[in-house]
Amino acid sequence: MAEQEKNRISVEIYGHTYKMVGTETTGHMRLVASIVDDKMREISVHNPSLDSAKLAVLTAVNSVHELLQLKEQVGALEEELKKLKD
Amino acid sequence: MAEQEKNRISVEIYGHTYKMVGTETTGHMRLVASIVDDKMREISVHNPSLDSAKLAVLTAVNSVHELLQLKEQVGALEEELKKLKD
Repeated sequence: MAEQEKNRISVEIYGHTYKMVGTETTGHMRLVASIVDDKMREISVHNPSLDSAKLAVLTAVNSVHELLQLKEQVGALEEELKKLKD
Repeated sequence: MAEQEKNRISVEIYGHTYKMVGTETTGHMRLVASIVDDKMREISVHNPSLDSAKLAVLTAVNSVHELLQLKEQVGALEEELKKLKD
């Protein structure tokens, strides 16, 4: 496989600047950063006493929870497709 | 809709204890916590100088990136199903 070109950008998440490096487009990386920023701000509204480390952990927890739900959905859709194709 | 019973547990993520409350099973909540803990430890191996707040933010970033990929996959599968059903 040819080596893919890497994109590098700086993004701001919850008041801190992070350097992101990846093979995805910078648009995709900015979108991911803005979703994390939004999630952290939303959680902080409901938990104003949390420090930013715990806030970020809860953001990761919520994202992983959604991730597992989506994985289940993918499994169910694949199963349905398989039945239709058989 | 009847009010769902809420489960409450304490979980440990990257050396800190968090109280989780949710309508999911405690097994699901423990699984989510252990995935976040694993992701944080994996990222810390590659970025040993990061403090835990930034580590948690990067964990959230990785999870949201995976989330977007799965959403695309769900969209593609739904499209394929729709075509087969029409």
